[in-house]
Amino acid sequence: MKALLYLGPGRKSLEERPKPDVVAPTDAVVKITKTTICGTDLHILKGDVASCMPGRILGHEGVGIVDKIGPGVTGFKPGDHVLISCISACGRCVYCRKQMYSHCISGGWILGNTIDGTQAEFVRIPHADTSLYPIPAGADEEALVMLSDILPTGFECGVLNGKIQPGSTVAIVGAGPIGLATLLTAQFYSPAKLIVIDLDSNRLDVAKRLGATDTINSSFGKASEAVKEMTSGLGVDTAIEAVGIPATFELCQEIIAPGGTIANVGVHGTKVDLHLETLWDRNITITTRLVDTISTPMLLKTVGARKIDPKRLITHRFKFDHILEAYDTFTHAADNRALKVIIEA
Amino acid sequence: MKALLYLGPGRKSLEERPKPDVVAPTDAVVKITKTTICGTDLHILKGDVASCMPGRILGHEGVGIVDKIGPGVTGFKPGDHVLISCISACGRCVYCRKQMYSHCISGGWILGNTIDGTQAEFVRIPHADTSLYPIPAGADEEALVMLSDILPTGFECGVLNGKIQPGSTVAIVGAGPIGLATLLTAQFYSPAKLIVIDLDSNRLDVAKRLGATDTINSSFGKASEAVKEMTSGLGVDTAIEAVGIPATFELCQEIIAPGGTIANVGVHGTKVDLHLETLWDRNITITTRLVDTISTPMLLKTVGARKIDPKRLITHRFKFDHILEAYDTFTHAADNRALKVIIEA
Repeated sequence: MKALLYLGPGRKSLEERPKPDVVAPTDAVVKITKTTICGTDLHILKGDVASCMPGRILGHEGVGIVDKIGPGVTGFKPGDHVLISCISACGRCVYCRKQMYSHCISGGWILGNTIDGTQAEFVRIPHADTSLYPIPAGADEEALVMLSDILPTGFECGVLNGKIQPGSTVAIVGAGPIGLATLLTAQFYSPAKLIVIDLDSNRLDVAKRLGATDTINSSFGKASEAVKEMTSGLGVDTAIEAVGIPATFELCQEIIAPGGTIANVGVHGTKVDLHLETLWDRNITITTRLVDTISTPMLLKTVGARKIDPKRLITHRFKFDHILEAYDTFTHAADNRALKVIIEA
Repeated sequence: MKALLYLGPGRKSLEERPKPDVVAPTDAVVKITKTTICGTDLHILKGDVASCMPGRILGHEGVGIVDKIGPGVTGFKPGDHVLISCISACGRCVYCRKQMYSHCISGGWILGNTIDGTQAEFVRIPHADTSLYPIPAGADEEALVMLSDILPTGFECGVLNGKIQPGSTVAIVGAGPIGLATLLTAQFYSPAKLIVIDLDSNRLDVAKRLGATDTINSSFGKASEAVKEMTSGLGVDTAIEAVGIPATFELCQEIIAPGGTIANVGVHGTKVDLHLETLWDRNITITTRLVDTISTPMLLKTVGARKIDPKRLITHRFKFDHILEAYDTFTHAADNRALKVIIEA
């Protein structure tokens, strides 16, 4: 089969690889029909993710058809149409039993990281019963690819951790795919203000169309003042960090209201300053999280009921043979006005 | 009346001052029977608290007898025996209505800070109906002085924010009065492990007597390793920062288990490093809080029912005339093996 391989920092290649087979009784092999590229894949390609070794097939998102199952799989059979979760979960360990699937002792984020991933014709999925989700008949495959990772990430790490409530004020710092996924799912809870902040005016236009009540272009360096002006000087109840650099985490600290929550969604490579000298008495909460994908069944229902349309995050489509082109487009997202790219078999 | 005045950094004095009177209709004047000194008073004396101006009567803790009430006070009458909360709350503003009394727009921590405090023969208490608590007949006054500030602070900022649960593992970093108040109230929830960490072996002995399951002397620099050893390598579910310096906040980050909560109780004067590069995916929560004293009625019941004995935090007693001696003793707490000092009329 064809597969996209990580070959070490800065190097990738589309190559022929053996089709995976069932290894453990709880494995399934899935034929990929659609996959996508994540910002995390770009991080791996920069050499930022030490756990991902050269030779690895990348990708942790996708939908497909079950090709083969191990004798321990009872919830799926060959031919089933399935959504692949970016998080593999045994369902049994101490972390799984408290719904922290992201920290599953024999799973977590392993696909396209410590085991081969979804940017291939086939993928082996461990713990299939608790890591695959049945796709309802008639569902739009493209929309559901967004449910492998970015929708649950935005929702769980941003919206749920950020405790967004009806009438509350929210700022999302970063309007990339994850920030926009947060924006879409934040609207489940009817906040009064949904302010999106970014440097890219195109992405802010998209944010407006996707439901931002206000947008702020932070290129001018006055984002904090602008948020204060929009919130009677108080700041926001929820600030969502959806970039992963010190400057955006700093901004979240500047704009958080007393009693508010800073929900970190971004992947950070360095430490940040935490201003406890001003925040110690402000009754704030800061949360971090690797998506647990506990909300995947719920998100499937919201998509089915047309409460959200994650397809609006898709800007480009490529055949699998052109995956290197897809990477180029996604790597230069700002120039290409790219958000999520779909790669189809 | 006699009162202890802050006269600017490093300077205090016991002086004669006019007895306070009712100013607003909702004020009460309380004759102080017992008060105490808080670490925060020492911070003020170092010049660390800019809001507290020279000439201020210090103190935000105490019990006494209502001497006079304004026409708007309906819950108390002269002669009533009352506990003074360190937080004054109007009960009406947007923050009070979400039980964030600490941020009350016309209150919060004002006593001995922006208005005259309790280290005097009399004190004016604004918003008396929502800032005083009736003392049950027969209650021990000394024990209740601990409920003005340190017990609710340890309980709300440490135990409640830290989400301590039956069977959970807890580390309290800092065994000063606030750390020990946290230790006492943490036991309401029956955690499996209550590890107390400090540099002072005398305070660790006290912690053992007050219910710590384990103690670690961090002088030897291996506190993080010791905690890991005590928790099967995982770290603790709750880490409580009860000192207020970068090193102790750093330790909390080292010992927190995935899914855990770092509850900050300490008063910080400088920023700290937040290691998002390792914590971004660990599903942790960090909280800050100025005590809201929402738990004062509950704590009064637990003391009444002998579920805790806050008197065990008291090491020294002084007559009000000797308050300067009390300050000396408390300022050199380690040499004097001092925890809380009682100052009585």
